[in-house]
Amino acid sequence: MRTFLHPQDLGDLQAALQEARAIKADRYAHANLGKNRTALLIFFNNSLRTRLSTQKAAMNLGMNVIVLDVNQGAWRLETERGVVMDGDKSEHLLEAVPVMGSYCDVIGVRTFARFESRDDDYSERILRQFIDHSGRPVFSMESATVHPLQAFADLITIEEHKRKARPKVVLTWAPHPKALPQAVPNSFAEWALAAGYDLTIAHPEGYELCEDFTRGAHITHDQDEALRGADFVYAKNWAAYSADHYGQVLSRDMSWTVSRDKMALTHDAAFMHCLPVRRGMIVTDDVIESPRSLVIPEAANREISATVVLKRMLQAL
Amino acid sequence: MRTFLHPQDLGDLQAALQEARAIKADRYAHANLGKNRTALLIFFNNSLRTRLSTQKAAMNLGMNVIVLDVNQGAWRLETERGVVMDGDKSEHLLEAVPVMGSYCDVIGVRTFARFESRDDDYSERILRQFIDHSGRPVFSMESATVHPLQAFADLITIEEHKRKARPKVVLTWAPHPKALPQAVPNSFAEWALAAGYDLTIAHPEGYELCEDFTRGAHITHDQDEALRGADFVYAKNWAAYSADHYGQVLSRDMSWTVSRDKMALTHDAAFMHCLPVRRGMIVTDDVIESPRSLVIPEAANREISATVVLKRMLQAL
Amino acid sequence: MRTFLHPQDLGDLQAALQEARAIKADRYAHANLGKNRTALLIFFNNSLRTRLSTQKAAMNLGMNVIVLDVNQGAWRLETERGVVMDGDKSEHLLEAVPVMGSYCDVIGVRTFARFESRDDDYSERILRQFIDHSGRPVFSMESATVHPLQAFADLITIEEHKRKARPKVVLTWAPHPKALPQAVPNSFAEWALAAGYDLTIAHPEGYELCEDFTRGAHITHDQDEALRGADFVYAKNWAAYSADHYGQVLSRDMSWTVSRDKMALTHDAAFMHCLPVRRGMIVTDDVIESPRSLVIPEAANREISATVVLKRMLQAL
Repeated sequence: MRTFLHPQDLGDLQAALQEARAIKADRYAHANLGKNRTALLIFFNNSLRTRLSTQKAAMNLGMNVIVLDVNQGAWRLETERGVVMDGDKSEHLLEAVPVMGSYCDVIGVRTFARFESRDDDYSERILRQFIDHSGRPVFSMESATVHPLQAFADLITIEEHKRKARPKVVLTWAPHPKALPQAVPNSFAEWALAAGYDLTIAHPEGYELCEDFTRGAHITHDQDEALRGADFVYAKNWAAYSADHYGQVLSRDMSWTVSRDKMALTHDAAFMHCLPVRRGMIVTDDVIESPRSLVIPEAANREISATVVLKRMLQAL
Repeated sequence: MRTFLHPQDLGDLQAALQEARAIKADRYAHANLGKNRTALLIFFNNSLRTRLSTQKAAMNLGMNVIVLDVNQGAWRLETERGVVMDGDKSEHLLEAVPVMGSYCDVIGVRTFARFESRDDDYSERILRQFIDHSGRPVFSMESATVHPLQAFADLITIEEHKRKARPKVVLTWAPHPKALPQAVPNSFAEWALAAGYDLTIAHPEGYELCEDFTRGAHITHDQDEALRGADFVYAKNWAAYSADHYGQVLSRDMSWTVSRDKMALTHDAAFMHCLPVRRGMIVTDDVIESPRSLVIPEAANREISATVVLKRMLQAL
Repeated sequence: MRTFLHPQDLGDLQAALQEARAIKADRYAHANLGKNRTALLIFFNNSLRTRLSTQKAAMNLGMNVIVLDVNQGAWRLETERGVVMDGDKSEHLLEAVPVMGSYCDVIGVRTFARFESRDDDYSERILRQFIDHSGRPVFSMESATVHPLQAFADLITIEEHKRKARPKVVLTWAPHPKALPQAVPNSFAEWALAAGYDLTIAHPEGYELCEDFTRGAHITHDQDEALRGADFVYAKNWAAYSADHYGQVLSRDMSWTVSRDKMALTHDAAFMHCLPVRRGMIVTDDVIESPRSLVIPEAANREISATVVLKRMLQAL
């Protein structure tokens, strides 16, 4: 495996989920696989869960880990040819990225949507620079448009808790005070569909996600309709994707907060969220603290998804 | 051992000191104990000695180490229930702390007295959040009111250098330009008393420490009286603890600086300080550079105290 | 080996280059040498290549690594005796440095010329404090006046690519918008001369380097003359060294940029630069992207030079 951004990068998704189960049962089973192998984890944005769980995963496999914090503002690489670099860009990507690749075996990159330009964000410019020029396998630790380690962990969690072969899974928008990227809902939709779940996406008008990720899902503006009969409710805020309103907050409609009344519409659904979560906005205290809340085991599964991904990258070296 | 804040957490203190001696003689004797175990070290404040010595200790035991720097100002976790989190707090402690616990086996936490509220500092709010909600053993790497790894290292040092079974140990206040926490003097008094030393505490009026830590010590405002016959002189500045003046600097009396003349009053005492130390304020050059100064070996013993604590936490997992 | 600043610290340079070749062939051959040994890498300045390559080197040898970032502005150690430390310096070097030494086996230090005082920079004050007071072997990870890990990597690279026993090597100044230290050109000249290469240094008037490093080189202000017959062209900017203009930018003469026309004067020379490099200023795109450009393998050899140095320090413990 040379890149990890999408479910198809794992090949047979069911086999990957099976492998995750095995690794969770014995997460040190491959502790020699990473001997004398180095993971370089590059953070252009702050990260708590991803930083800790990916380090832990690399160490589960016996890898050496180098963490590099890069201020995104300071990462002013020149990308054009023919430029006289007499300004604030002190290095060209054609030098910087291959050099970083030369000191490691696998690279993880964390970036974030900047909401300055939809085309820029959706081109995954920074991540692509590493894929194209580092000479190493590259995996997203959340990038501008996808968060595959999260979505893979979400699927591992659903598989652990599902009560029927093809559960009804609902991804619902919920209110938040700030503009947030679409990386998590994009990947959750993409992965849930790849897993063959019965996926419904509910959001207010104007919050349509990029169709590349949602094709095959039932999409509605009626949250109650969506929740009826749901087995899993995945709440998440995101800012608008539409060309006219890209990155904007169009609604703070608090009637979309996932409450006990909302959950009562479901088929005793489990509640999921990628964290961090704002209580009272996204979800009420009683729902997130209920026995049907999976937010903590879901976060713990981040270690498992990252271990599977790194294991596969190591095996393909 | 599930928490490490106080000497009683170690059980039999003499046995723990004996264990420290053995580890110092062979600090890699338990290099397999920490295999596939991860220490998460969380720093809410800058740290040099604690950061280096605790990392070293964890590596002595073969542990993996993850260091996390958290800006205390940025650690705005919501702690209440029933709140609509639409402000600057983006996560609730009931999610954040268990998740951090899920990626490690042992947690060390470094915090600092903020001097905004005595009750707030003395409740050890941040440290307690980890003890109560992380699901992992938690040790203080200096918190608002205690610095047990330092005090344990101090005792190891005294045991190495004492010339009689029950030495006279003097903890003396000394002047400093800034307001400093009581964590070091609190723990030093608590641990020296737990070890059964003959402890005298000397400080100007108004600098009384919390009685919970000093009960059993002889307390005086006369530094010269305290120093007479002393075997060990432990100098340290702290700000006032009293409810009326909490966190204030009440004195900069330079006659309290530990000088050669002061040391001449003692029984050829050894000089100790936790470092960093301001020369000319706390102690004169000739005293800290004298053959009776233990400040460097005392700092080096921080590695030993941390190794014992981590070893015990690992053994109890 | 107790210090690493100059080629003579390696003893027989040819033997060291031979050892580098062997390590490059099997960089994990000594993976047990560093067992239970700790490298402390202290960065007073930002670093990308040095940080990654030195960590990698230490891990190649099985060492534990502790990275410490110190804001150079915040490193206000008192160095005088007899001072009342009531100002902004909270620690004396005679305490801080030995304590840091007590938690590790080998220390790497990264500092930078500050251009405030030539005497201050050329005394290598911070690095010397560690050499004199840490009690540990100390190596420069670029300091105010030398960058020996870079120069050693440069020699490894030249040895790999040279086509005759004693190549003509040209170190040429090239324009840059900012004032840069002399560490890289100083060390490159010193090491190239130590290796016995036929070294020519070309720069505009006023850019003479310190003679301690360049004695034995042919020095000219005519870049074209220098380039004629060159086997290797090493481009680098530096600020003035002369007492009157220390640290100043005296020229931005773009006729010194290494272009295809310039390279046509050479004996099909290889192009080298320590990176990061500003294209269009130091070198044109076509030269740095040509098959004769060695900048990426040269950077990759930083891992090899650091592995040799750490290996030798470990063997001498």
